Amino acid sequence: MTGYPSFGFVTPENMSLLVDLYELTMADSYLRHGMNQRATFELFIRGLPERRNFLVCAGVESALAYLQAFRFPEDTIAYLRSLQLFSDGFLDYLRGFRFTGEVWAIPEGEIVFSQEPLLEIVAPRIEAQVVETFLLNTLNFQVMIASKAARVVLAAAGRQVVDFSPRRDHGVDAALKVARASFIGGCVGSSCVLAGKEFGIPVYGTMAHSYVMSFPDELSAYRAFVQDFPQNSVLLIDTYDTIQGARHAVTVAREMAARAQRLRGVRIDSGDLVDLSRKVRAIFREADLADIRIFLSGELNEYKVADLLARGAEADAFGVGTELGTSADAPHMGGVYKLVEDAMGYRVKLSAGKATLPGHKQVWRVVRDGRFDHDVVALASEPTPPGARPLLAKVMQDGRVPGEGEALRAMQERCRQQMAMLPEPLRAIDEQAAYPVRLSPRLEALREQMYRNGGAWAPL
Amino acid sequence: MTGYPSFGFVTPENMSLLVDLYELTMADSYLRHGMNQRATFELFIRGLPERRNFLVCAGVESALAYLQAFRFPEDTIAYLRSLQLFSDGFLDYLRGFRFTGEVWAIPEGEIVFSQEPLLEIVAPRIEAQVVETFLLNTLNFQVMIASKAARVVLAAAGRQVVDFSPRRDHGVDAALKVARASFIGGCVGSSCVLAGKEFGIPVYGTMAHSYVMSFPDELSAYRAFVQDFPQNSVLLIDTYDTIQGARHAVTVAREMAARAQRLRGVRIDSGDLVDLSRKVRAIFREADLADIRIFLSGELNEYKVADLLARGAEADAFGVGTELGTSADAPHMGGVYKLVEDAMGYRVKLSAGKATLPGHKQVWRVVRDGRFDHDVVALASEPTPPGARPLLAKVMQDGRVPGEGEALRAMQERCRQQMAMLPEPLRAIDEQAAYPVRLSPRLEALREQMYRNGGAWAPL
Repeated sequence: MTGYPSFGFVTPENMSLLVDLYELTMADSYLRHGMNQRATFELFIRGLPERRNFLVCAGVESALAYLQAFRFPEDTIAYLRSLQLFSDGFLDYLRGFRFTGEVWAIPEGEIVFSQEPLLEIVAPRIEAQVVETFLLNTLNFQVMIASKAARVVLAAAGRQVVDFSPRRDHGVDAALKVARASFIGGCVGSSCVLAGKEFGIPVYGTMAHSYVMSFPDELSAYRAFVQDFPQNSVLLIDTYDTIQGARHAVTVAREMAARAQRLRGVRIDSGDLVDLSRKVRAIFREADLADIRIFLSGELNEYKVADLLARGAEADAFGVGTELGTSADAPHMGGVYKLVEDAMGYRVKLSAGKATLPGHKQVWRVVRDGRFDHDVVALASEPTPPGARPLLAKVMQDGRVPGEGEALRAMQERCRQQMAMLPEPLRAIDEQAAYPVRLSPRLEALREQMYRNGGAWAPL
Repeated sequence: MTGYPSFGFVTPENMSLLVDLYELTMADSYLRHGMNQRATFELFIRGLPERRNFLVCAGVESALAYLQAFRFPEDTIAYLRSLQLFSDGFLDYLRGFRFTGEVWAIPEGEIVFSQEPLLEIVAPRIEAQVVETFLLNTLNFQVMIASKAARVVLAAAGRQVVDFSPRRDHGVDAALKVARASFIGGCVGSSCVLAGKEFGIPVYGTMAHSYVMSFPDELSAYRAFVQDFPQNSVLLIDTYDTIQGARHAVTVAREMAARAQRLRGVRIDSGDLVDLSRKVRAIFREADLADIRIFLSGELNEYKVADLLARGAEADAFGVGTELGTSADAPHMGGVYKLVEDAMGYRVKLSAGKATLPGHKQVWRVVRDGRFDHDVVALASEPTPPGARPLLAKVMQDGRVPGEGEALRAMQERCRQQMAMLPEPLRAIDEQAAYPVRLSPRLEALREQMYRNGGAWAPL
């Protein structure tokens, strides 16, 4: 236990213990029984949550960073020893632990569907086993958020979306990773400053009601703020009376114009956003200040954004917080991590409702007339289906990530391009539509054979 | 930006940037305008989510650790400078930044309700302002999880509940903090090993289906595991056929008995848990092995736990994962952080639906016949209401936490004792009931006066 008061942060030094206990007991047992041969595990989302027609892959980089740096420092070994559970042999093994495996992954920003492996891990069984908890935690969360963001961005129909969620996200790592994953999903940036420092994400901010209230009156608050931040002022206009706030913004914008400055925008955070935004825009147009941007916020989500726009709201950008950062209408993702191949051969799990597909795989995407037509999940050893593009690429060899990695903007751009190729029905925010993910004939036949035999394995 | 691949972990070194950008721009402005006088902010939950009749306070220790260690190391200043937004004076100010304020908090494990301040922060305005994002992130999340856990524990009616959520939690900090907050709420432990190391929480684990499948047959898997962990084996019996699995468990338990060992338990993770658990218990009773514990898991929550028990399931413990760790039926908490007093006097926010209560406060609890009767929110300067107990206590002075802090077990015990005093209607898992939280006559009168005047401030 650390001293009082304690943060309890997860760091590269203690992250190897961010693991379910049973991963370590099983690993100890595998070691004692000489069961550390190479095996293939895959991570996939079992079924799409309700209200999700597609998912956006995200979190791979965090997963790779973890796999590459994964160690058991002395104090973690000491803690494990204190549990009086593990064999000395296993604790010695952990002391020298490195992840030495191979990883195949679908690039971040790629559109994915259920049953498609996002990661394939080929490694000695123990190495592949003990990383399960962390990999699931990381991928489940970032995929969920990138997918939610993509929906909000779809709803915003070309207007900007900014992540405003840190205060409601599930802890500090969530606050940082929501910014990252939602940027991949199409947000232009985040209010989270650390996301700017760590990931180079553009950071955005306006002002709070408490700022306005800290001055004798609204106009004094606005004047102070634009004096301090002449390039970057977005004035919050709903503290007292939104219409009056808009008029104060006009006053300030004119004063700025006289100094050759430009007021960037205003934010409306409460009230009837349709009615108010239209009245505010009219005030700006009348004042010949139509270039003042209107930023809407306040408990928004993709449904409300779509509704606001359908009802004629005037908006250049949306700040979306709580519901984006918690994926409130689908707050968990059913990713699982399963053994699909080992020294004995192909492996499946047969349990009702939890069945898996055997073998190391590839996912193929077929595009027709500029739109996704269908995907094929196949054994990795199968030839390329005609006209298909492989989604899984090797990203780690012998426990090392070769090369430089990809910029976050490239992932965002991939997502943007792929979203444009989504079949129209899948783009509907509130209607369910299914995308065809097929099994290759060979994979289908193998699965049938294994299920018919009721056997958890079949020879390669 | 850090190197590739990057974790992007939040650490004590970069945590000061886990802040919404506007907190820093407003702070810069306050500094430039000489507005850094002492002010009081409070953190409270605006309204209970649907399906929550009470909340459990949690997260205070993390908040205090943050406030005490809060600094802006050089690389954070360099990043902020690169934004070309802040004044040199402000960046210099941040270089020497310390939180020097006073904090009042409701102890962790205490039952709380909406409108009751969980934290009161008295500090120079800038110090109080820039910590908003982190404090809200931390308290919102841990209160939400402790409250959810308390409901699951209520539903389990004396049976043990273990946190099994790490793989579905929202990132790595969430995985660690869910273990902490759910322990306060009454869980006996967590599968998260790091929670054991960092917080001294008991760690629990059984085995995965993949372990069973890794052996030629179920019995071999069980024999290997109990050989390796004779003191601590909980066998997963639903990989192939749960009834057959229970019989294999009996075989192994008898072999263990012959070695003077005892099989600790079995876990059932799928199927009709009522029917299966009853049949499994019958098998154990028939075999004179009724002390083998039965552990149920598989997409559980408080509703399902209550339903299982109502329908006669045999269970000694429940493993609850996804829905506990994401508070799935109420995945965000509406905590806010508001200015209530400053050098000008009492402060309120008047916006419709977002109004606040003025002044530095105390929360009083009145108990009658061993049950909570009502709470009173009053100005801190008011005398003790008759028979009332104050909930807010000073936990930080001049930016330092005095003393040793409290053990997590003491917080858990507080929660247990207070839960026993909850009025019966509030203990219902699926029926809404409201608890009376009253304003003191003086606070009520002050609020009325300020609202009537339409003024955001009133003299002290």
